[in-house]
Amino acid sequence: MSDLQTHSASHTILTGDRPTGQLHLGHYIGSLRQRVALQDLYPQFVLIADLQGLTDNGSNPQKISHNIFEVMADYLAVGIDPAKTTICLQSALPALAELTMLYMNIVSVARVERNPTVKAEIAQKGFSRTLPTGFLVYPISQAADITAFKADRVPVGDDQLPMLEQTNEIVHKMNSLLPEPTLVPCQAMLSAVSRLPGIDGNAKMSKSLGNTLTLGASADDISKAVHAMYTDPNHLRVSDPGRIEGNVVFTYLDAFHPDAAQVATMKEHYQRGGLGDRQCKQELEACLQALLEPIRERRLQFSADKVALMEILQAGTEKAREVTQQTLAEVKRGLGLPVMF
Amino acid sequence: MSDLQTHSASHTILTGDRPTGQLHLGHYIGSLRQRVALQDLYPQFVLIADLQGLTDNGSNPQKISHNIFEVMADYLAVGIDPAKTTICLQSALPALAELTMLYMNIVSVARVERNPTVKAEIAQKGFSRTLPTGFLVYPISQAADITAFKADRVPVGDDQLPMLEQTNEIVHKMNSLLPEPTLVPCQAMLSAVSRLPGIDGNAKMSKSLGNTLTLGASADDISKAVHAMYTDPNHLRVSDPGRIEGNVVFTYLDAFHPDAAQVATMKEHYQRGGLGDRQCKQELEACLQALLEPIRERRLQFSADKVALMEILQAGTEKAREVTQQTLAEVKRGLGLPVMF
Repeated sequence: MSDLQTHSASHTILTGDRPTGQLHLGHYIGSLRQRVALQDLYPQFVLIADLQGLTDNGSNPQKISHNIFEVMADYLAVGIDPAKTTICLQSALPALAELTMLYMNIVSVARVERNPTVKAEIAQKGFSRTLPTGFLVYPISQAADITAFKADRVPVGDDQLPMLEQTNEIVHKMNSLLPEPTLVPCQAMLSAVSRLPGIDGNAKMSKSLGNTLTLGASADDISKAVHAMYTDPNHLRVSDPGRIEGNVVFTYLDAFHPDAAQVATMKEHYQRGGLGDRQCKQELEACLQALLEPIRERRLQFSADKVALMEILQAGTEKAREVTQQTLAEVKRGLGLPVMF
Repeated sequence: MSDLQTHSASHTILTGDRPTGQLHLGHYIGSLRQRVALQDLYPQFVLIADLQGLTDNGSNPQKISHNIFEVMADYLAVGIDPAKTTICLQSALPALAELTMLYMNIVSVARVERNPTVKAEIAQKGFSRTLPTGFLVYPISQAADITAFKADRVPVGDDQLPMLEQTNEIVHKMNSLLPEPTLVPCQAMLSAVSRLPGIDGNAKMSKSLGNTLTLGASADDISKAVHAMYTDPNHLRVSDPGRIEGNVVFTYLDAFHPDAAQVATMKEHYQRGGLGDRQCKQELEACLQALLEPIRERRLQFSADKVALMEILQAGTEKAREVTQQTLAEVKRGLGLPVMF
């Protein structure tokens, strides 16, 4: 997050999540924590991307609608403050759909098919001839999201860089068609820890693999998850030297332990032998319990009051609506289309 | 138009045009004339499909925006009455874009690529790798248009039947995802004369081929066009027998002459020999001058008052907005998505 230190000029930030399930520790470390810091520095919009969630859940819409409020509760529980951050709902912002329609005319099918992120996801999800049209074009929809807010900084993992490149291509092409530049190019803000492995050591943390720890996890869930964590399979006796690389317990200690010096000492000890997995896991569990207990409690409170969640979402979406309608009107006027309402 | 006679129940009609140029005699005979008749029978919406026009004019938006009011003037000049027919603008109806986004998730890329109409158009326009994404998905956008208005009758040429088939697939799939059927299946209303050939005999009448006669054509334009019309190239002397098949003058006489019996007599005479092309063309020219003179004059009046045209378009679009927002809200509620505004 070097941007935080080196840029004094103002930026507009857009991030968001597909509401496909409760958020987990991977989201916390890769993104949510950063948003809590950024909201004190810049105008920040957080988009609950329900339309994008539907692109590969078109036949299971209840999964998406159900999780809108789960994700809202996660946001508020980790400290995203609606007084500082505008939380808004993608499907309630028509300008995003309208800009997508306009952008689709200046992006070829060949170009979206070539997007490396989309290619990888299509392979991973096992789509072939059944690929939903909405999924193919979601990079264009994402470009509509970013540009509608005139966001110039987008916190993402490095796997999302091709998305921003495609967004900026659309920005330049569309600006060239308008009497004056209207859309704003964006830059990635890469987070320090971009991706947390699953508790089983798998590089990808996902609900379907059962290797996550959600932000609402109970004390017992946390305890069980830490004790099931992948360490060094060859570290059989406490006195044996152990490996740090690929050892999930140390990856998590790096990510979550507040005292880096203490973690460094533990690593040294573990590598020369004499430090047991059990002791490392106890240390990690204490960190995670301390982190997640207040989040879990706040989460429960927020989840219990759906009316209040809806009010927050509606207020944020109203604000987002003004901003995004303004951008849409500028683009339409620039293209010569009547702006009636 | 057997529907007109055989159905007493009410229907809702949707038609429309891409504003890519002034409308011509082909539009008049294939569609506009029918709309003037239908507006006395059923609720009718006429959509100026500027977004669809942009799908293959993405880099030339001024062509589309300029022609919105040309098409409006054509409508009013032929007798489409805004008191009976709701004339509205696609880009000013956000529900159409939003429904397109929702439908894209339940239609596979393979399915849109298989659409015969789209396949033919892609070949005809010479798209290959440069195919705009918006063009590929326009059948889905068209399904959004039809279903947003809950139109159950769509006057089209038979080349458009695959579009309606695809629309009905979307209707059935989306209805199956909703707690109760919300979208309405549609049927084609095929017009008696579905396609008028160009004046040069080419089956396709198009501005780029220079073989059309626009509704605003001057008396001189009409005269020149009729005299340049393709007849029977082997009918060299008046006394020779002539061919009717492929003879554009007779195709046009069939379409435009008010007295079918007189045309039948002329055909007989022409086929046995003794009736000259010049005389047939004079007869046709008289018909076309009589048809187009009042249209041209009304067209000039309407074109001169852009403010009045904009008021009519805005009033129609407001009415269309209510109807389409209602359908969108029903679909969103059925999918479990919050409806905030």
